[in-house]
Amino acid sequence: MLRKSLQNLQEHSRKARLLSGETRSQMLRALADAITTHTPYLLAENAKDCEEHASLLPPSLAQRLTLTEEKIETLVAGLRDLAAKPDPVGRELARTELDEGLVLEKVSIPLGVFCVIFESRPDVLYQVLGLALRTGNGVVLKGGREATHSNRAMCGVVQEALRQAGYPCDWFLLIEGRDSVDEILRYDDLIDLVIPRGSNEFVRYIQERSRIPVLGHAAGVCHLYVHSSADIAKAIQIIVDAKTQYPAACNSVETVLVDASIAATFLPLLHQALLKAGVRSRGCRETCDLLRISDTVKDTEWSLEYSDLILAIKVVSSLGEAIDHINRFGSRHTDGILAQDHAVCEHFTSAVDSASVFANCSTRFADGYRFGLGAEIGIGTGKIHARGPVGMEGLLTYKYILRGDGHVVATYAGESARRLLVRPIP
Amino acid sequence: MLRKSLQNLQEHSRKARLLSGETRSQMLRALADAITTHTPYLLAENAKDCEEHASLLPPSLAQRLTLTEEKIETLVAGLRDLAAKPDPVGRELARTELDEGLVLEKVSIPLGVFCVIFESRPDVLYQVLGLALRTGNGVVLKGGREATHSNRAMCGVVQEALRQAGYPCDWFLLIEGRDSVDEILRYDDLIDLVIPRGSNEFVRYIQERSRIPVLGHAAGVCHLYVHSSADIAKAIQIIVDAKTQYPAACNSVETVLVDASIAATFLPLLHQALLKAGVRSRGCRETCDLLRISDTVKDTEWSLEYSDLILAIKVVSSLGEAIDHINRFGSRHTDGILAQDHAVCEHFTSAVDSASVFANCSTRFADGYRFGLGAEIGIGTGKIHARGPVGMEGLLTYKYILRGDGHVVATYAGESARRLLVRPIP
Repeated sequence: MLRKSLQNLQEHSRKARLLSGETRSQMLRALADAITTHTPYLLAENAKDCEEHASLLPPSLAQRLTLTEEKIETLVAGLRDLAAKPDPVGRELARTELDEGLVLEKVSIPLGVFCVIFESRPDVLYQVLGLALRTGNGVVLKGGREATHSNRAMCGVVQEALRQAGYPCDWFLLIEGRDSVDEILRYDDLIDLVIPRGSNEFVRYIQERSRIPVLGHAAGVCHLYVHSSADIAKAIQIIVDAKTQYPAACNSVETVLVDASIAATFLPLLHQALLKAGVRSRGCRETCDLLRISDTVKDTEWSLEYSDLILAIKVVSSLGEAIDHINRFGSRHTDGILAQDHAVCEHFTSAVDSASVFANCSTRFADGYRFGLGAEIGIGTGKIHARGPVGMEGLLTYKYILRGDGHVVATYAGESARRLLVRPIP
Repeated sequence: MLRKSLQNLQEHSRKARLLSGETRSQMLRALADAITTHTPYLLAENAKDCEEHASLLPPSLAQRLTLTEEKIETLVAGLRDLAAKPDPVGRELARTELDEGLVLEKVSIPLGVFCVIFESRPDVLYQVLGLALRTGNGVVLKGGREATHSNRAMCGVVQEALRQAGYPCDWFLLIEGRDSVDEILRYDDLIDLVIPRGSNEFVRYIQERSRIPVLGHAAGVCHLYVHSSADIAKAIQIIVDAKTQYPAACNSVETVLVDASIAATFLPLLHQALLKAGVRSRGCRETCDLLRISDTVKDTEWSLEYSDLILAIKVVSSLGEAIDHINRFGSRHTDGILAQDHAVCEHFTSAVDSASVFANCSTRFADGYRFGLGAEIGIGTGKIHARGPVGMEGLLTYKYILRGDGHVVATYAGESARRLLVRPIP
């Protein structure tokens, strides 16, 4: 059943891919209009979900589940932004004249069909749908169980609006149930990319089972290294910001590494600032001695992600030790150095393996919106395809188009072979 | 044991990654010099392999196993070419001023460590080693059993030359034995990309077992579609070239689709040309009737890769049917249209899902060298990362570097939030 629906989706999204960028902009505006018109209906359906589940959820999750007029206005504004963006599909990435009349073009195209698995946070649905439409992709949406009424209503409004205006509406599919996730992960012939958004355990679960490439991060163990040349006041401000501005975020700092030469002066100042901000410190033996705290971090605990007002602190003897520690215990998400010495910063940013490497600023900047990517589809910690905060470009790939006029390879082989020109066209 | 070696390799390749582009050019020239100096030794070691195995191999494979002075000269010239190429590492891909003094840079970096599994074709070893060095990657080389002496000698010459000149030489590792391949495919924490080169069965074996991303193609079922507007003479020339110029190549054509409106006139002409070129035709029922041949292609046989002087022919009723057939039975490798109607060509190149889509030229052009990519590391038929003929860019990824001066996220949040500028720097 599900496989059949996905085959259908693949087929329809192949057709929808041929729509022009201008048509896709019109569709995005039609969605925005329909959502505005149907706001009362969407809020009413969301209220059913909240009635059923909100009281059973922790406050932060209940808040995520709840749609408000303001949230919907923000979503609509996001769709209008996307409608105004230049078409990312069909962009010429390179052009080469291989020979007279034989021109090679490398052109951006949609990936095909991607699947986003998200939590009970219904606003994600329209963000993802908008990105899929802007990039010409088909999309499978699997939302959280608690948002069932909301998700169905949101998809229904969009489907109806597209159908009424005579636009294709079979390029997205809402699926439900945990079993369907397990099934989908096997269909690498029908889905080109899976983007899981949720707990670390959930992302790891997907990564381990999927035959389809996965874009995401199972952990955000971010570091800040304080070099001996650091501006102390700025360093403390940055660490406090990176830890406390949103402790549950994946780009919050979990471990601070401090150069041994400044540990005795720096650590007490940092500790004071952390205490004031409500942060509990743990540390290596040396840190614990210096700060007179007792919570020692075990060797196996350096890759813990606290996602809370807890910070691990370690004294390191050198820049090299800091880099090695990060490359070993980090999650390749976001790591930074605090140093005034420019050469030291450059060495650090070259040598650390992570998707985002920062100097003298908070790790919390690692975010698609702050990076200017527009909407963010996810943050990837792998090496392949897109990594770091990923916007629309993660939903695109490319193809080579070669246009000739009867050209055959035999001309360029053998004794009297003609040479290919291979001249890049700027 | 192997895991320990790979951990070592990862560590050393992290250090080697910091070498400047100029140093890597010097190392490439040092390799070229050493290989030239030790040509007699390399030929002698290769002769041992040939003595042991050549008589047991089919002639084409025996030829691939054999090193010659000319082959070595070509390899040396290839390394000198790479030495002269601009450094692909550390290129600025984008630059954005997020706010005053807070500048985001997207920069090209090596993938890390990749693994190439190749057949008993020792010249591949130096091509891969050169690409790894130019792109700053560590590399695991697994060559064919029959080339054991050659592979060891080739690696030994390079290692000795680098060591003597005081360059790092621990960024590559030669491994042997099929078991080690199975073991390596589990180590997704140590290897970033696997590139299998060999039979379709072998590539599929790797794809099915690997926890590491795989770049490659398990099949090359390439199509040419002859539209009613085709230039008949050119179409026949292109089909004969695409089938016969190197039938065992993955970019040779396997199936020709012919528009029904021209089938009766076109097919007999094509058949004649194919017969003259020694090609045996198989076909759909209509083709068999028209050509009075009896070898009917069964429905399940349309995705066969013959890799031989055999061609499957099918009459289709429309452009749409041709596109659907290719997207269904093809391998997303290389597919082409033969048509004088420009709009038809454009529709075809947009709608066909393959990595390379051609109009009015031979599928045999799908090749990294012909595309002007320099050396080709493989041809990918997936959608993720690099696809089509892949050169150096498939061995690179990127990172984001953000340089600030004490910037914290709190400044941009809450009531009196400052707005980020997010101004692209051209």
